[in-house]
This record gives sequence, C-alpha cells and structure tokens, in this order.
Amino acid sequence: MPLISKRGSLMPSSPIRKLAPLAREAKAQGVKVYHLNIGQPDLPTPRKALEALKHIDRETLEYSPSEGYAFLREKLVKYYKRYGVDVTPDDIIITAGGSEAILLGFLACLDPGDEVIMVEPGYANYISFSKTSSIKVKTVTARIEDGFALPSVEDFEKAITPRTKAILLCNPSNPTGYVYTPEELQRIKEIVIKYDLFLFSDEVYREFIYNGKPYVSALSLGIRKNVIMIDSVSKRYSECGIRIGMLVTKNREVHDTVMKYCQARLSPPLLGQIVAAESIEGTEDYAKACFDEYKERRDFFIKGLNEIPGVYSPMPEGAFYTVASLPVNDAEDFCRWLLTDFRLNGETVMMAPAAGFYSTPGLGKNQVRMAYVLKKEDLARALAILRKALEVYNQPR
Amino acid sequence: MPLISKRGSLMPSSPIRKLAPLAREAKAQGVKVYHLNIGQPDLPTPRKALEALKHIDRETLEYSPSEGYAFLREKLVKYYKRYGVDVTPDDIIITAGGSEAILLGFLACLDPGDEVIMVEPGYANYISFSKTSSIKVKTVTARIEDGFALPSVEDFEKAITPRTKAILLCNPSNPTGYVYTPEELQRIKEIVIKYDLFLFSDEVYREFIYNGKPYVSALSLGIRKNVIMIDSVSKRYSECGIRIGMLVTKNREVHDTVMKYCQARLSPPLLGQIVAAESIEGTEDYAKACFDEYKERRDFFIKGLNEIPGVYSPMPEGAFYTVASLPVNDAEDFCRWLLTDFRLNGETVMMAPAAGFYSTPGLGKNQVRMAYVLKKEDLARALAILRKALEVYNQPR
Repeated sequence: MPLISKRGSLMPSSPIRKLAPLAREAKAQGVKVYHLNIGQPDLPTPRKALEALKHIDRETLEYSPSEGYAFLREKLVKYYKRYGVDVTPDDIIITAGGSEAILLGFLACLDPGDEVIMVEPGYANYISFSKTSSIKVKTVTARIEDGFALPSVEDFEKAITPRTKAILLCNPSNPTGYVYTPEELQRIKEIVIKYDLFLFSDEVYREFIYNGKPYVSALSLGIRKNVIMIDSVSKRYSECGIRIGMLVTKNREVHDTVMKYCQARLSPPLLGQIVAAESIEGTEDYAKACFDEYKERRDFFIKGLNEIPGVYSPMPEGAFYTVASLPVNDAEDFCRWLLTDFRLNGETVMMAPAAGFYSTPGLGKNQVRMAYVLKKEDLARALAILRKALEVYNQPR
Repeated sequence: MPLISKRGSLMPSSPIRKLAPLAREAKAQGVKVYHLNIGQPDLPTPRKALEALKHIDRETLEYSPSEGYAFLREKLVKYYKRYGVDVTPDDIIITAGGSEAILLGFLACLDPGDEVIMVEPGYANYISFSKTSSIKVKTVTARIEDGFALPSVEDFEKAITPRTKAILLCNPSNPTGYVYTPEELQRIKEIVIKYDLFLFSDEVYREFIYNGKPYVSALSLGIRKNVIMIDSVSKRYSECGIRIGMLVTKNREVHDTVMKYCQARLSPPLLGQIVAAESIEGTEDYAKACFDEYKERRDFFIKGLNEIPGVYSPMPEGAFYTVASLPVNDAEDFCRWLLTDFRLNGETVMMAPAAGFYSTPGLGKNQVRMAYVLKKEDLARALAILRKALEVYNQPR
C-alpha cells in the first residue's frame, strides 16, 4: 500500500477541532458540552439574509465568476468605505471563506521555503495554511503578562532573514482579542517598507472592538501595494457556514496571480454570495445588537474567569476570544479530561488547548483559547463547571 | 514593491476561462457569444433541490462538520450502491467541489517533487492543482486518431520513475468523452499494483455514458486501499455553483490526512450540502431526461462538426465534451479572433484552445475543447458560425 505524503503526516491537527471526537463521545453518553473551543456564534444570521434564500428565482445554480459576483463586490466597496477603506470592486476577490483567501494569498506571494512572520499565539490555521503552501513560519511572541500587545520592532527584526517575504497580522486578534494601536501599526509599516515585505492583514473582526480603540485597516497605512487584506462575512453576520470570504489588494500583480488560482477552483459558493450580499446593507441595527451582546458577554465572562482561583485572562479588546492561563501544567490533558472524565450535573466544557496557537514548542502549555460566543446563562454554567473541574483535577490523586 | 512568487508567475491561466475578458468585451459591444468553452450546463437544477432552499428553518447558518454533514454522506452511500460501489459514510469527505477534493488528495498523498501520471489531453485544472501542490505531472498521450483510447501499458511504464506516486484517470473523460473499457481499467490496476501507486479516479461523469459501455468505478477494481475517488454533484444535477464535491476512499490513512486539511479550512459550504442532499434522491426522472437531452445534443453536435470541411471530432462516448481538430495552425489564435474580430449576424462562438489540456508543448495546437451543454438551436447556431468563421479565417489575407 502506498504511503501518505510526509507533508500530510506533518500537518498539524486543528487544536480547535482535534478534540471533537471526544466531545462526540461525551454527547453520545448524554452529556451536555458547552463549546468554548470554537468561534461558532450562536447569534442568528440576519433575518433578511435568510429570507433572500426563499426568493432565489434562478432555474440553474450555475458557476459564478471566479472572482465572485459583481453585485457582492460592489456592496463590499460601500461597506469598506464606512470603515475608511477606499477600494474598487476590481480590488476584491471572493473566496471560500477567509481560509481560502489566506491560502491563495500565500501561494501567490511566497515560494516554498520563503518565510512569513506571525505573532504567536496566533490563529492556528495560519500555520496549517503555511504548511499547505510549504512556506516557513517565524514567530514573534506576544506575552500574556503584556496583555498580548505587539512584540517589539527588535523582536520582528530578529526574525527577519533573506527568505522573509511577509508579515501576517490578525487585527483584532484571534485568539487574544488584542487590538493593535495606530502606533504599533506604524511600527509594522516601517518594517514592511524597510524590508520590502508583503503585509497580510486579517481584519475579519473589525466590527468587534469594545474599548474605543480606533480600527485602522492595513489598507489605510499608505503602503497599499504591500497589503493583502483578508476578510470574511462569517463572524460578523453569524453565517460561518456559507463560506464567503474576501481577499482585497491594490497590488495588481498579486490580484492577477491569485485569480489564476481562483480560476483553477472555478468559483466561490454561489448561494453564500447571495446571503452575504443581503447581509451587508440594511443590517446596521443587527450589527449594533450583536456588538452589544458580545461586549456584555465579554465583560461577564472575563470577570468570571478571573474570579476562579489560579485563572488569569487579560481583558480582550476585540473579537470574541481570549487566551487564559490555568493552574494546570498541561492544558491539553486537562481539556481531554474534561471531555472524557469530568461532569458537573451531566455537563462539561470543551476548550481549545492554546499550545496549538503557538509555534515555539513549550509555549502556552498552561493556556487555553476560549470563545465567548454562547449566551450568558451558558457562559455562567461553563464558568461554574470550569471552577469545579479545576478543583477536582488539582486534587492530589 | 515585493515580487509575487515564482510558482504564482508560473501558474498557468485556465484555458477554459482565460479568454473570458475578450468574451466580456464582445458582449459589451452587444455581440451574442455562444459558450462552448465551459461545462456550464444550461439544464435546470432539480426543482425539489431549489425548493429545499425555501424551507431552510435554521436561525443560524453555522459551520458544518469539516467532513460534511452525515445526512448528505448517508444519501451518497445509497447513491453509490446503485452504481455497484460499496462504501460507508465514513469513507466520504465533502469538499468545495471536485476541485478541492483533487487538491487535498494530492497534498495528502504526494510530496513536493513527487510525480503523478495523467493522460493528455486531460482536464486542464489537474495541472493547476499539481502546480499548487508542487508535484510534477508526467503525461502519456492519447491520440485523436485512436479516439483518445487509453495509451498502452508501455507508455505508462515509460513515464514511471522512482518519484512516481500516483496515476490520475478521468473516467468518463473530460475533455475527450472517452470511456475506459473494463480491460483498460484492468491494465491500470496491474500497473497500480506493480508499482504500488495511488489511483486518483475522477468519476464525476459516471451518469453520462451514451454507448452502453459499463461504468466501472476504480473502487470496484479490487485495489480499494490505493484508490481515491473524486466526485461532484455539479454536472449531474446542473448545480455547479453550489460547490459540493466528494473525496471517497477506503484508505484510512489517506482519509485521516485529508481530514487535517479539511479541518484547517473549517467546513464545506452549508447551503450547497442541503441542495445536494435533496438532489440525490427522487430525481431519477430528472436524471433520465438530462441523459436523453445530452445524448441528443451529442449526436447532433458531433455530426454537425464533422460536416464542416477540415474539422474532425471522434464520437465522445461519455461526459459532454469533445476535443476536435480544426483546419488551423493555431487554435488559440483562432479562438481569440472569433471573440475579437468575427461576427455572424452579431454573434460569435467561444471555445477553449486544447493546447492547455496537454502538458507536452506543441501538442493539440490545432485542437479545441468544446462542451455541448447548450440547447440544440444554440448548438446549430454555433456550428453555423464556426463553419463560416473557418472559411473567413482561412481566406488568404
């Protein structure tokens, strides 16, 4: 029997989803599992977007253009304008989620062996897409004791080699919730110019900034030819399942190269584009309500976390995640144990071990990433379970 | 400004879509363009599948499982059984079209520099996905004068090197319409066993075999651990836009490795899965009507083609494409000229230059790939335009 590829065997399992089989088993036993592991919002998709599905008058669900429908890209242009970002429909390519945008951006900009610098802890799948495209990840470490602020310019410069082609930022950050300041972005800009790099900027959480910090798009930094903005409708309209993301760039060469990859995969999902286009306009009240809801959940959840003995979470400024440290040596073991062994009144909690969000071996071993995308009563239950579980887990055994 | 990647610059443009800008310009001038270039069926999607969209009672369009919904995979199991293929839901992974299935299969089975053997002319995007995954393509050539039958075992063996990891077959074949005989598949089986290879088998056109040849799935050859079957609902239910394909394998290692890539991209399109699941059952009459329609179109179109002086097309046995030779030296130039310069009563034809379906430089230069997915009146118009265009193009200028 032929062997699978080496790269396949070295591909990491998703830290967000790899414990899913254990969760399934627990559920099969009748256990209720609170999912703090995944950014799957429980908020409803905008009503008018769901309604749009009922009024599709197409006879044939045909291929859409490889770059996505103009009607969607035109609405996005107006949307970005509200955030001070000035682009045209031709600068936007619709992708199968932000995921595909990242992968195709990597392929178009970096060759195998080229290097991208990321902040750790970072979104785990960035590493997966780097491996998929055979590029190397160098990380600079943000520290929980600094609230996960941007590492210093010196740290970035130490990571730069002749193979460095790009920096990737997620702002607001998944998994830490940190929002970069204009000054921090200015520092990134200077590095990008000095070393002539691409800047991948994942801005899918721009609408979720809770502390009044301004949203500054990488496309507003005055280095537009260097920037590839990654975006997605998944989180802001609670429609992760439709798989609609965007790659936005003013760099024509990058655009045209990404398009060659897009033509190979033919087209992005048609139905998702219809839902996404309907979500963008006339949903300002919806967006405000989501924002208020997440802010309240954040305040409630982070306060509750920090009240558990030995647990520490910085206050995330944006997105809907936090990375918290627990009074355990091996958070993955604890997360597994929660699913296999621990129940409080027939319930338990699923979290993502944070080590999978770091590249440097050994970092984040006592940390977990949690998404506060559940309603308050459920978050309260999850907190109670976590508190009790830590007590039991840390008892002398 | 940083430079795009070498692999990006070497990525071929899709021969199917690369002339699209010229077609857009022609249309902007009011010219009607008959699209023979792309397998975008004009037949309607099954009514009951479209209806399913109106009855979605979800509040939130959430992520689906990375492997796709069980309800869809279970229906597929029953569907495959009708074709003599015995698999379980756990053998099936739902992907964003057959396209994603091919790419993820390559990544899981081949390392950069490893080789896959394909038949040329072959589906152009196989080459794109090979380049995307940094694997090398070796081709064995099927000849128009043989009706594009399977090249000899000797030809395959000549292409084998120590880096060969896989053979890829498309059966029935896009772009030639050839259907491999049980004997030919037996020969492939022997090569696969002898050299311990993976066999990628793209069987998306299984329902479209017009000459009574039996459909033999690679999964029925007795080498199930070697086989990765690629499938898609796009063509058989005329729903290319929903982006739902499948990777089917009894090889657990391959399955689990592909799943790691699937987890990284989170999930296949949710809405497409609902449409696909509704298309599979209770659509037997629909399938029969589509089959009859395509068969009639084939008979009409291929006869018409062969009546044009200097044009030759073998009779395709399956799928809905043909590769035909034209009395021109450079079919790409002719295809461009059709879009930019030639009009018959304000109409013209778009075809895909076949050179892009060959890897060997110089082959297929006088050939085009055509899809007979238009209704008969339109095919008749396209034939008339093509006949007249060849006359004008070949006049001494």
